[in-house]
Amino acid sequence: MKKIVLMLLFSCFSSVLLGQQNVLEPLSVDHVRTQPHDAIISTKGGIEVTTTDGEFSLQLGGRVLIDAAVYSEDKNTLGNGSELRDIRLDLEGRLYADFIYELSIDFSDGETDVKDAWLGYDANYPWRYTIGHFKEPFSLEEMTSNKYLTFMERALPNAMVPGRSLGFGINWVGEQITLSAGLFGDDYNDDVDDEGDEGWGATSRLTYAPFAEERSALHLGLAVSYRKLDDEQEFRFDSRHESHLTDIRYLDSGKLSQSDSLTLFGFEGAWVSGSLSLQGELIQANLERKAYEDPSFSGWYLQGSWFLTGESRQYKQRTGRFGRVRPLNEYGAVELAARYSTLDLNDVGIEGGSSDNVTLGVNWYLNPQIRLMANYIFVENDIFADADGDVNGEDEPTLLQFRAQADF
Amino acid sequence: MKKIVLMLLFSCFSSVLLGQQNVLEPLSVDHVRTQPHDAIISTKGGIEVTTTDGEFSLQLGGRVLIDAAVYSEDKNTLGNGSELRDIRLDLEGRLYADFIYELSIDFSDGETDVKDAWLGYDANYPWRYTIGHFKEPFSLEEMTSNKYLTFMERALPNAMVPGRSLGFGINWVGEQITLSAGLFGDDYNDDVDDEGDEGWGATSRLTYAPFAEERSALHLGLAVSYRKLDDEQEFRFDSRHESHLTDIRYLDSGKLSQSDSLTLFGFEGAWVSGSLSLQGELIQANLERKAYEDPSFSGWYLQGSWFLTGESRQYKQRTGRFGRVRPLNEYGAVELAARYSTLDLNDVGIEGGSSDNVTLGVNWYLNPQIRLMANYIFVENDIFADADGDVNGEDEPTLLQFRAQADF
Amino acid sequence: MKKIVLMLLFSCFSSVLLGQQNVLEPLSVDHVRTQPHDAIISTKGGIEVTTTDGEFSLQLGGRVLIDAAVYSEDKNTLGNGSELRDIRLDLEGRLYADFIYELSIDFSDGETDVKDAWLGYDANYPWRYTIGHFKEPFSLEEMTSNKYLTFMERALPNAMVPGRSLGFGINWVGEQITLSAGLFGDDYNDDVDDEGDEGWGATSRLTYAPFAEERSALHLGLAVSYRKLDDEQEFRFDSRHESHLTDIRYLDSGKLSQSDSLTLFGFEGAWVSGSLSLQGELIQANLERKAYEDPSFSGWYLQGSWFLTGESRQYKQRTGRFGRVRPLNEYGAVELAARYSTLDLNDVGIEGGSSDNVTLGVNWYLNPQIRLMANYIFVENDIFADADGDVNGEDEPTLLQFRAQADF
Repeated sequence: MKKIVLMLLFSCFSSVLLGQQNVLEPLSVDHVRTQPHDAIISTKGGIEVTTTDGEFSLQLGGRVLIDAAVYSEDKNTLGNGSELRDIRLDLEGRLYADFIYELSIDFSDGETDVKDAWLGYDANYPWRYTIGHFKEPFSLEEMTSNKYLTFMERALPNAMVPGRSLGFGINWVGEQITLSAGLFGDDYNDDVDDEGDEGWGATSRLTYAPFAEERSALHLGLAVSYRKLDDEQEFRFDSRHESHLTDIRYLDSGKLSQSDSLTLFGFEGAWVSGSLSLQGELIQANLERKAYEDPSFSGWYLQGSWFLTGESRQYKQRTGRFGRVRPLNEYGAVELAARYSTLDLNDVGIEGGSSDNVTLGVNWYLNPQIRLMANYIFVENDIFADADGDVNGEDEPTLLQFRAQADF
Repeated sequence: MKKIVLMLLFSCFSSVLLGQQNVLEPLSVDHVRTQPHDAIISTKGGIEVTTTDGEFSLQLGGRVLIDAAVYSEDKNTLGNGSELRDIRLDLEGRLYADFIYELSIDFSDGETDVKDAWLGYDANYPWRYTIGHFKEPFSLEEMTSNKYLTFMERALPNAMVPGRSLGFGINWVGEQITLSAGLFGDDYNDDVDDEGDEGWGATSRLTYAPFAEERSALHLGLAVSYRKLDDEQEFRFDSRHESHLTDIRYLDSGKLSQSDSLTLFGFEGAWVSGSLSLQGELIQANLERKAYEDPSFSGWYLQGSWFLTGESRQYKQRTGRFGRVRPLNEYGAVELAARYSTLDLNDVGIEGGSSDNVTLGVNWYLNPQIRLMANYIFVENDIFADADGDVNGEDEPTLLQFRAQADF
Repeated sequence: MKKIVLMLLFSCFSSVLLGQQNVLEPLSVDHVRTQPHDAIISTKGGIEVTTTDGEFSLQLGGRVLIDAAVYSEDKNTLGNGSELRDIRLDLEGRLYADFIYELSIDFSDGETDVKDAWLGYDANYPWRYTIGHFKEPFSLEEMTSNKYLTFMERALPNAMVPGRSLGFGINWVGEQITLSAGLFGDDYNDDVDDEGDEGWGATSRLTYAPFAEERSALHLGLAVSYRKLDDEQEFRFDSRHESHLTDIRYLDSGKLSQSDSLTLFGFEGAWVSGSLSLQGELIQANLERKAYEDPSFSGWYLQGSWFLTGESRQYKQRTGRFGRVRPLNEYGAVELAARYSTLDLNDVGIEGGSSDNVTLGVNWYLNPQIRLMANYIFVENDIFADADGDVNGEDEPTLLQFRAQADF
């Protein structure tokens, strides 16, 4: 108590002593004070601000994906219900003409998940350099934003795709070709027990589009990825069945100890012809283990889609991925789609399970930014697809799921 | 190591091979690119951007609620202290004239809590359709934003109110009447053990305002809610004592197993006459249990408020709730308020406790967006109000709490 | 089921009955509707909107800090890797001319951490009053934003600095003097077991700058802080080694029970002369314990920096801290820096460890908002610096770490 009195005295004393000193300007928060550039502002649900010289810009947007699922269960309970599948805020911008950044955070499930968080140097076209947290360049479906996917979830083989990691990347873009390569550490919130070293990886993707027009495109792609696992040396692949609401991951390799490194190969193809499109990928994973035989896993999918209302899937040659569909009619666009996908996690005694999924989908694009989706999925599991022993194998449920999606 | 070398070679080789290809435009991030509409921008602490045709808009705002509490304890320790009660970012907007959305996330307590996250269709006036995460239409106090509540916390019976869930809602608005109804799943982050099915509910609210003018209004409301519980079939009501800082929830029914469904009835009334207002609600909950007797719980509150400075509480007929007070004087508005509330969770052998609270409150609205609040609460508990056995019953503490609140 | 039918009937009945009532205006979301003031918008990567009368404003910005570290380990594994060090969204603004607010949230590590969240009253210059969550006024290095620090992490003695708490503060600013004082509770997410009372503290800082010009400044500062610990009475100081990526905190006093209060003294000095600068601080902590001898801990650091490219560190007299460096040349600014820091947590039988760090640093400011950093740290620990027994003492690792930083 005495100390507080002393301190307050000290405070008062000082201020009285110095009370004669006075200046005129108000205090201001010590922060980036931007200059009053001439700025162009626009909105299409989000905000975009750009300086007239184009040297600075910011875009604020987001997305809301709301799902419901009804499972026609066979041998295991899957849990009907609803969820917020993605609640995303996106901030991206340009700094001093040459630099760009993106910051994208997902708040669904009541948790914070940093998606993109990177800085890029953009002044050495056709090269671009990126540092931070972003997707390793692997798989057409992975590179395509969930805003623009044909189905509600990515196909089964996506379980083998690296996804986002912290790293450094280079992109090169030509008239028909894009090339992306990067060196990566682990994901931003991976932590290794007993402070072992994190793993690292190198991933590269090459895409080639012999033609890529408004309503007609052909895409071919090839990707390789090498990953040195972290000091725990535990490896695991697992996968839900193209439905996010249930927590059951039938396909599960279990934790494979003494795993040293993983090499991935990906082959991609897509073809757009008017309202029709086809797309397929094949992914192969080779794991190197010490004192155990090295297993290989593989999976592939093939999908087709047809716009009843005449639109085309929008292939973006410069990034080698698909983009936003804009309905041609006032009542929106309607798309029918079907997909077959398969993943096999059984090899050299590892019984991770194997599964085939057939999905039928309908998408109604009310306008370029709002979409309703319905997917009906037939699952056929083998006896080992038992969620690493947690559920019954040979399960054959069917899944019906719905989504309302908006982005801005 | 060999593999990396190979991959880098592959990368270099590809780029050299294709180096002759060059295009002129810079890469750009694949994102919603908004069109340069003519936009109207304004701020009152937040940002609002609207296109001149009114078809698109975005509003970014937030709120900060800072609390401190001093407890005059009787039989149990409650824990004096301070907290961030609500740190909220709000984003809402309009898309393609007919669609609206809201996204509202709370970051207090160092956790992420998605509040509103919904899409609405607004083009079929006087009907409106909503899908996503929002409040089930039940209780005047619940429907009123915490920015506009007369007291720092909602009254005891609010423990029985459904709050926010994932669902689909319909609103209809007339000159004196509003009607809201919805079908709902569980809250977005509820997860059922062993993948059982989530529960679902149907809730409907009818409000009638015989008159609703600037300084004079009468509100009557009626709501019913039915909820089929999830497959765990565990039901629980619990409640703090109109003070959020302490974690003690004296009133606690405990987990009631084999609970099948819950039916709620709510009766609301409010009356504004110049600077005076009265408001009250009665809520009754009937639980259906298998193999046990069905309990009924009920609670009610009655509150009055008086603006010394001449303002009126702002009743919004179109939404059947209260809104923002705008001080008439430069020094702001001062409001005195009192409330009696009671909740009884004792029935058919369930000893959840019963309690009466009397609250005296003073609010100082410095301007329409900043408010200081003080609440003094007298608590009288029965012997069963023991936090399901964790603390002593028959406790009679008094609570003094303060809030500084700003929204923008 | 019967109940739902009844409820839907009730809904339909009501709407039919009242269907004749109709009004013309569309529904609107009940939210702060800002007035169309004339507003000035600018961007420098973020957005700033200010009304022409200056009464309202909002600034939206953020920061991205990406780190990688390679540890040259001696006796303990530290764990090489990479991380998102800080992913921050900042919102600050002005309301009704006299009030200001700031809201700043960190999303790195996949968790939400509220940094600044306060309201201020700014109309009584040279006084300013603040309420909410903000830094207790203690230590030059702590008061300086991590955007503007010379080294990647603050020096070892920063482990003793109070940091952010919930409280009420007063600032006074003169031509050469600033005075800050505040009363504080605990941090916003501290919770005391068994609902004991939270602790509280009082902190005051006085700075004096005999001269403070663009390229030449002298800063002297003095701070005291008293903290009454919460009802758990457990006290702990611990510290990483100026590297955030590893989780090892060599210096760790352990939990010191029966701790009653803590008193801190801080002495600060900084001198800028053209491209050269020196800065140092000494912090002493005295802990009062019941039934144990009272320990004292202390630490200090001294650092120098030199801009090869001619810039100066920017001392801000009004806030008594350092601010943003703006490169003079097109290729940016380059800064060399060195620091010695030491912290001793050994006293009266407490063996928290003692350590000396020497850091060499290079900073490349590509432009005012983007910076690359590299730090090389030599660590020398005594035998007690064993992370409270978790690792080996007398460890002498060297740490090499890199950062890419952008703010907007």
